[in-house]
Amino acid sequence: VSSTAFQLNQSAAHPYPSGVITLTTDFGHRDPFVGVMKGQILMRFADAKVIDLTHETLVHWPAEAGFWLSRSYRYFPRGSVHLAVVDPGVGTQRDIIVVEADGHIFIAPDNGLLAPVLTRADAPRIHRLEMARLAHMGIGAPSATFHGRDIFAPLAAEIAAGRCRPASLGPETRDFVPAWVDDPDTAADHVTGVVITVDHFGNLITNIEAESIKRLANPVVRTGAHQFELRRTYGEKQPGEYLALINAFGVVEIARAEQSAAAGLGLGRGAPVIVASTA
Amino acid sequence: VSSTAFQLNQSAAHPYPSGVITLTTDFGHRDPFVGVMKGQILMRFADAKVIDLTHETLVHWPAEAGFWLSRSYRYFPRGSVHLAVVDPGVGTQRDIIVVEADGHIFIAPDNGLLAPVLTRADAPRIHRLEMARLAHMGIGAPSATFHGRDIFAPLAAEIAAGRCRPASLGPETRDFVPAWVDDPDTAADHVTGVVITVDHFGNLITNIEAESIKRLANPVVRTGAHQFELRRTYGEKQPGEYLALINAFGVVEIARAEQSAAAGLGLGRGAPVIVASTA
Amino acid sequence: VSSTAFQLNQSAAHPYPSGVITLTTDFGHRDPFVGVMKGQILMRFADAKVIDLTHETLVHWPAEAGFWLSRSYRYFPRGSVHLAVVDPGVGTQRDIIVVEADGHIFIAPDNGLLAPVLTRADAPRIHRLEMARLAHMGIGAPSATFHGRDIFAPLAAEIAAGRCRPASLGPETRDFVPAWVDDPDTAADHVTGVVITVDHFGNLITNIEAESIKRLANPVVRTGAHQFELRRTYGEKQPGEYLALINAFGVVEIARAEQSAAAGLGLGRGAPVIVASTA
Repeated sequence: VSSTAFQLNQSAAHPYPSGVITLTTDFGHRDPFVGVMKGQILMRFADAKVIDLTHETLVHWPAEAGFWLSRSYRYFPRGSVHLAVVDPGVGTQRDIIVVEADGHIFIAPDNGLLAPVLTRADAPRIHRLEMARLAHMGIGAPSATFHGRDIFAPLAAEIAAGRCRPASLGPETRDFVPAWVDDPDTAADHVTGVVITVDHFGNLITNIEAESIKRLANPVVRTGAHQFELRRTYGEKQPGEYLALINAFGVVEIARAEQSAAAGLGLGRGAPVIVASTA
Repeated sequence: VSSTAFQLNQSAAHPYPSGVITLTTDFGHRDPFVGVMKGQILMRFADAKVIDLTHETLVHWPAEAGFWLSRSYRYFPRGSVHLAVVDPGVGTQRDIIVVEADGHIFIAPDNGLLAPVLTRADAPRIHRLEMARLAHMGIGAPSATFHGRDIFAPLAAEIAAGRCRPASLGPETRDFVPAWVDDPDTAADHVTGVVITVDHFGNLITNIEAESIKRLANPVVRTGAHQFELRRTYGEKQPGEYLALINAFGVVEIARAEQSAAAGLGLGRGAPVIVASTA
Repeated sequence: VSSTAFQLNQSAAHPYPSGVITLTTDFGHRDPFVGVMKGQILMRFADAKVIDLTHETLVHWPAEAGFWLSRSYRYFPRGSVHLAVVDPGVGTQRDIIVVEADGHIFIAPDNGLLAPVLTRADAPRIHRLEMARLAHMGIGAPSATFHGRDIFAPLAAEIAAGRCRPASLGPETRDFVPAWVDDPDTAADHVTGVVITVDHFGNLITNIEAESIKRLANPVVRTGAHQFELRRTYGEKQPGEYLALINAFGVVEIARAEQSAAAGLGLGRGAPVIVASTA
């Protein structure tokens, strides 16, 4: 693999490679799976800046990975390549898609993972990967069970290095596998969503967007028999007290000051949450 | 954000930027919180070398993060920027301090986290951050719940890139919130401290400094009804046997050869430990 | 420490430094142990590309670290330095070995960790480290309990920077501590191995090489009273069904589609596994 210095200065080849590659997987930290992906990236693009977004999303469930990626990519430089692998169908006929959206590039199995990005981004372009188009880059003959190492990592390196454009990888399409979790239901006086993930602190993070509840007068947040006021931040409550807030990623969250709301309420992913007007 | 190459060669702007930024938080590895902080750093300082110190300190308890940071920073190049966020008061009126000490720079909430650094360093200089001073760098209007991403990360990037000096960020002060854990009590024939953290191996790590027990004749280490000899290293005991030692960070540790002392003794953070003379 | 730019271009000093250093330990992610190792690397070699292979191998058991390292290093550039520390004997008389094999360099305690590399690589060269040879590089007087920070990290940096060759570090030897786990037994109609690790997904990964079972007609995989067909990938079975396959690291694995085989079967490290001909 030759030097990338020349290509990186070629705006024609790729308008905005930042050299940054983010990784989002359900691989965990116990095994060398993430490490060998990074090895494969460095073998092709020695100057890549590889950032772990998360490797602890729920295994085999693309929805959580897609939720976090769709809320996180804007905090990276434009021209970053976001590789996401939650891939229970690895080695079967499932497709891989490469997406350009908002000046970022995404590579993932076409299994619903990228749906939260695609439905929220402005005019995303989707290309369906044809493996034959990778042959000239020496990417091919993958193992049946680890495409993260054998396809995604080398392809992300080639794109991030500015040597390959998404449009060259396969036909453009408008079809993609939809999200695993429905968007919230909106009624006149309430919005109904679900807990999509529980963070390290035990905060219950929902898929209800701040924008969707703006029209509600004096909104409160309910789950089961519990009702919580919307506050601005955790420290407005005494330790142990519950609250709801719009979190730093723009969605409704149920929290417990200095404690775990998930443990305290016995709730987790999938729990229904309602934001209702009380005016 | 423009290139940093020129500034990095300007010793006048900042005498010793190493380009290294360390991260110490209670954010865990489950969520993309650490990843997006790195994204924000790279957006401002593409050549930053970001090193994770730890993200698994006890949540909402700044003492453990401060303990490890105060014992770890000397193993990084001078001119490194150490960003530490354990921040139950995020979004409230708590202050942020920027500290220069021993040729290193530290940024943290003023909540006691940095007290172990400040009380041990030689002539530290503390500046109390004024948010208005960040406006010209485009840092402002932070979220109410994630200052790690919205203030700490971009500020660390600006300092590490040599574009901003701590003294420019706010008035110098000698006040800071004290440590959450008292320093050990010293008597004629013993020193009394506590277990401050339990490591991955189950070793019980105390806040008792090697220096403080040098004057004790034939010291032994006691916790509850247990008494342990001071040895040099784990392998001097048979697997399963307990021992005490001065660990590689200069403090007294209670260990169990090839097993977990914490599990074996049923002890954890806060357990009182006495080093006593037996001469 | 002076600039490394000149040395990196000196093929005479070291034929193939890639600048990549991988880390494999049992240190976990709770404490700053890995972070301070990286600090020590950057102090000597600011441009090092440090990749975590894994830090969650079973504590005090070099076999798992050696298994993964021996199956992973080929996915990194030639000239990479692989530092591995699972070291219950730290601070005792155990030796450290530096190995050149397949264009890669390995540094580890001589406690069996590198045996899986040494027995599989083509013509490895082993050098037994003499601490006195490190003195001129300023490596010496290590702590008794953290050689990862005090010896391994700085030495890896010096080698990766091209300033030090393995042959200069001590006498060549053919002796090394053998592996902790026996290689599989091979009979006419079956091969008997063990589960060597359980991955994040609960897959049971054995030490039985694909090559060793090629001669078996219609092979099936057995453990206890269970028998599994060899398939190509997980998605060929319905969720919840068991299967066996040759995994992406070339060894036999027992899996359960979208679930944990380890939890479902109640098996873990050390479980005996037989691949038998059924022709």
